[in-house]
Amino acid sequence: MKASHAMRQNPPLDRYLAARASLVERELKLLLRARGKAPISFLAPVPKSVARAMSYSLLAGGKRLRPVLAMAAAECCGLPGRRVLKTACALEMIHTYSLIHDDLPAMDDDDLRRGKPTSHKMFGEALAILAGDGLLTWAFEVAALNARELGLGGAACADLIGVIASGAGARGMVGGQAADIDAEGWKDSELRNGRRGRAHRLLDYIHTHKTAALITASLEAGAVLAGASGARRRALREYGRCVGLAFQIADDILDRVGDKRKLGKRGSDADNGKLTYPRLYGIDASRALARDLTGRAHAALSIFKDDPAAGALRGLAEFVVTRDK
Amino acid sequence: MKASHAMRQNPPLDRYLAARASLVERELKLLLRARGKAPISFLAPVPKSVARAMSYSLLAGGKRLRPVLAMAAAECCGLPGRRVLKTACALEMIHTYSLIHDDLPAMDDDDLRRGKPTSHKMFGEALAILAGDGLLTWAFEVAALNARELGLGGAACADLIGVIASGAGARGMVGGQAADIDAEGWKDSELRNGRRGRAHRLLDYIHTHKTAALITASLEAGAVLAGASGARRRALREYGRCVGLAFQIADDILDRVGDKRKLGKRGSDADNGKLTYPRLYGIDASRALARDLTGRAHAALSIFKDDPAAGALRGLAEFVVTRDK
Repeated sequence: MKASHAMRQNPPLDRYLAARASLVERELKLLLRARGKAPISFLAPVPKSVARAMSYSLLAGGKRLRPVLAMAAAECCGLPGRRVLKTACALEMIHTYSLIHDDLPAMDDDDLRRGKPTSHKMFGEALAILAGDGLLTWAFEVAALNARELGLGGAACADLIGVIASGAGARGMVGGQAADIDAEGWKDSELRNGRRGRAHRLLDYIHTHKTAALITASLEAGAVLAGASGARRRALREYGRCVGLAFQIADDILDRVGDKRKLGKRGSDADNGKLTYPRLYGIDASRALARDLTGRAHAALSIFKDDPAAGALRGLAEFVVTRDK
Repeated sequence: MKASHAMRQNPPLDRYLAARASLVERELKLLLRARGKAPISFLAPVPKSVARAMSYSLLAGGKRLRPVLAMAAAECCGLPGRRVLKTACALEMIHTYSLIHDDLPAMDDDDLRRGKPTSHKMFGEALAILAGDGLLTWAFEVAALNARELGLGGAACADLIGVIASGAGARGMVGGQAADIDAEGWKDSELRNGRRGRAHRLLDYIHTHKTAALITASLEAGAVLAGASGARRRALREYGRCVGLAFQIADDILDRVGDKRKLGKRGSDADNGKLTYPRLYGIDASRALARDLTGRAHAALSIFKDDPAAGALRGLAEFVVTRDK
């Protein structure tokens, strides 16, 4: 646990994260508020109702982890992080839409998100659904604009859209969420008998897709924009898979033992028969698994040697398993 | 009404529509069912639940109007319609997702769509939301693949994604749907007093965005893939705006006077205080307005002279106002 202890008192990493998160924050506001000139901004005709709902969730804070990962991946591959800011914001839009839809009464039925009322509590279900749809759609527009601004070729532009869409869609995050719903209602007795193996495989599928797929897409999007080689993309994918899975395991552990006020949401997974790592493996084994994945994430980055951005990615891998919210 | 009468007995147009709709049908099935090889297909890991829900709505029939428009627009601009089939399918995916979300209990709360149970009636609300999300996301992946297959340059690829996203998103269709929700609950008394002007403007906004925006995007997407000039794109946009608006007026009229069995849905707009053309202008004036828009749509196509595909677009403009379902 030395690395984790060191990381929690790692001012350079803290500064790195804070600097990039604040760039993302500023760019999101620019995208939301710019008037008339920028082809991508909200123009006057967007109804205030849905514009307000989109803005409310997009600016509700959060770690901005996916944007920071996209920027760090681009930096590892030789392109300054600022050059991929729009795509970084697009990935945050997709993450935000997924939270809005996930919180809906028909899904997780959550009243609070990051300590604030969820979208449907603020604006009603219909607008929450539309705000999510609007953010998901806008994300592709913003990413495409980034590709154009960087002068990307046709194949790379199509690659960027494909990487984001497959990470976010039915073969990625949406598939993970669907499997998560399919997996509700497991009884403890079932986990002790012959269905235990199936539960393990299902849980792995859920977590690699529900969380790791978009995290991986964020890293790979940064790499595509930087024109990275196949080997570097593969390394970032492996890093993303490990970090994403570790992130979700840490989430499960926090959901079980974390401070509810810090999390800003109800801890509810245990109540509805959901499969979680602590439930299948116990808390200690789950923690060990997360540490193991962090080690693999570190190993995957060896191709980048001692590039400072790779150092930040290593620090981030520690951060996701040691965070307390 | 001569043109409309002629059109209803227009075997060449019927054949044109049927041939293209069947190409779309086949391509949608290929995209849904292809296994393993094609990078874009559903691979094994997609959970059956959400794959089934996506497939159910996507293959539930319908006029395939947006795909046919995309193909016809490409043909007008010199590219065979088959070459834009994937983008045509992507536009149908977006149309289908919008219907799934529109039918949800929190939105229009419809039980039937095209004579069959709506997605949430078949699969539950959570999967219906996810199936819509999955289709919207997949659409961008499929369109980007089309751009890559055609060897489009970077600017054109970004253009294609931008055209589709802005037509489908908060500045387009999603904005129209949000305005539609904002506009519910208008009392007849309000329409007779000073707010009548506001109601007219709002209704215009709703209809040009809720319906015309995606129709226009379909046409423009076909044009972008064909590398069309700015003048041709503008002509197709104007055609799309007029046809889209005429389509929605025809829908309002059908909702008021049409045969419910042919429509395959409940006629419910009148009951919830929604703004509609028949309500604001009366049936006869609404019909006249739709005819006028059809004339403008014809005029917009003059740039294409007597190109056969433009002839099909002219026929389609008649079709949308004379259809009985």
